[in-house]
Amino acid sequence: MNFKARKRKAAAAAKAAGVDGLLVTDLPDARYLTGFTGSNAAWVLVGGRSVLFTDGRYTAQAKAEAEETRVVIAKKPVVTAACEWMAEARVNRCGFDAAHTTVATLESMRKAVPAKMRRGMFVPLESLIARLREVKDAYEIAKIRAAATLGCKLFEEMLGYLRPGLTETEVAATLEHKARLAGAEAMSFETIVASGERSALPHGRASHAKLPKRGFVTMDFGVVLDGYMSDMTRTVHMGKARPEERDVYDAVLEAQQSAVLAAVPGVAAGAIDEAARSVLRRAGLDGYFTHSTGHGVGLEIHEGPRLAAKQTQSLEQGMVITI
Amino acid sequence: MNFKARKRKAAAAAKAAGVDGLLVTDLPDARYLTGFTGSNAAWVLVGGRSVLFTDGRYTAQAKAEAEETRVVIAKKPVVTAACEWMAEARVNRCGFDAAHTTVATLESMRKAVPAKMRRGMFVPLESLIARLREVKDAYEIAKIRAAATLGCKLFEEMLGYLRPGLTETEVAATLEHKARLAGAEAMSFETIVASGERSALPHGRASHAKLPKRGFVTMDFGVVLDGYMSDMTRTVHMGKARPEERDVYDAVLEAQQSAVLAAVPGVAAGAIDEAARSVLRRAGLDGYFTHSTGHGVGLEIHEGPRLAAKQTQSLEQGMVITI
Repeated sequence: MNFKARKRKAAAAAKAAGVDGLLVTDLPDARYLTGFTGSNAAWVLVGGRSVLFTDGRYTAQAKAEAEETRVVIAKKPVVTAACEWMAEARVNRCGFDAAHTTVATLESMRKAVPAKMRRGMFVPLESLIARLREVKDAYEIAKIRAAATLGCKLFEEMLGYLRPGLTETEVAATLEHKARLAGAEAMSFETIVASGERSALPHGRASHAKLPKRGFVTMDFGVVLDGYMSDMTRTVHMGKARPEERDVYDAVLEAQQSAVLAAVPGVAAGAIDEAARSVLRRAGLDGYFTHSTGHGVGLEIHEGPRLAAKQTQSLEQGMVITI
Repeated sequence: MNFKARKRKAAAAAKAAGVDGLLVTDLPDARYLTGFTGSNAAWVLVGGRSVLFTDGRYTAQAKAEAEETRVVIAKKPVVTAACEWMAEARVNRCGFDAAHTTVATLESMRKAVPAKMRRGMFVPLESLIARLREVKDAYEIAKIRAAATLGCKLFEEMLGYLRPGLTETEVAATLEHKARLAGAEAMSFETIVASGERSALPHGRASHAKLPKRGFVTMDFGVVLDGYMSDMTRTVHMGKARPEERDVYDAVLEAQQSAVLAAVPGVAAGAIDEAARSVLRRAGLDGYFTHSTGHGVGLEIHEGPRLAAKQTQSLEQGMVITI
């Protein structure tokens, strides 16, 4: 793992943003920077000093997990303890993540520092660490590959299990059971199994509907291994497909393949979306493509970049995306 | 269901807080008030008018689910659409939930209304709807009872399944599989199975450790039925327990029973915590009781009230709590 390099990037990003302190409270961000996996954390970076604040439940765990980081077991709320520490360290401008800090938390941050420091101390920065996380290092790519490979293996196993009459819920339960026995810590998100007409629902939860003798079954699922997530959607057909079903399936497959081919470093995210969308447009099906084409994936199921219409962000080497 | 009464209570709470509009963006709050279960929603209440903003993925679902509420399918982010609507409705003071609104979202709310309205328009209210949700109505109590009953049934089944040599992960996988087949939409939280020395970890994830021939096994899990959650922790012992193991188990059981007996309307939450804590103190074990005694449960796994030391909130008829 590469926590030193990650912290160095965070320090450079903080400097570029014009702050002399950084407060990170988003848990995946804190895990990314320190390795700590607990459920309560505030991390600060000031002049090269990395300090993780957590509570007494995590004394042993934080010391074992957090690399190259001082651990403070706080009696107060971790954000309060972190801000008091920064006030003592004479931080003038502390960057915080406006997208992951509530209005109430910001108020508690302000109250934790002396009144004369408050004005202008807390600088809203949006997704500073989340942007660093978009480009994965070799360790992360290996972990995501392992999760995706397990997802593929589970899908293959499910092909031998699917049959008409099983309920969607039974299919989801079996898939999740296999995932757990294969070592998955958890599913990345609520498993979607949608059959027959329900397969048209982009977020159809598994229901008590039965798999049809003839018709589509869509499975959308992912597994978590060592904190890293996979995300795959596969649609299969039970029984003999009618010609129009084949046509629709083929058009979606071609759209996906077209987007996969378009995904190279330097290309705008919107261009990848358009690569898929234009295939469906030619097939007269773009009106039904209400979803975006994909997204980054890593410690969270939805990370940047967003592969959607008009997104100008360029793809970079090391990004991991779904299509 | 009782959405009319819930909205009436929300309107009364808004009035008491001195606002003429209410913006709700927390999804469980929005579900509580309207019945809508989608993943993107902003709900506003202005002069008795209830309007739910969501996006095109949920057109059919929102109209089917949201009761006595106008549904608007927004092209813009739902919070922006909701604030524009409120500006047109001439809302002067709009209450929003400071505990569930990020600094970035508040900024987008401000930008959505004309500059001359901005000053003082958005009034931070903390957990206005969450407080209403603490007292459950009959529909909710029935749903939580169903989830808790399923949890109990699963625990009984697991007693016949546990044996030395199974890994904690296998136990969790089997429990979750049974839950799914019994109709659970999901687990309430990541299932905890912690055995042997690991049973001392209050939040020990299921690991590859094997159940011992002699030793404790703690299971902490819950199921979701119709959105409502159960939460139970049970510790069992494999093989013959040593006298000191029995003593510790008995002390914890007595502490729990003591808290259950103390939980009546009108009692302070802290007094229930103290009922449990004092039993452990007499047994010389309170130093190991680093956890709080319990919490409310409903559409979310952690709701108010908090049963912890020094909490002054009084229990009310209709609250549902864990102990």
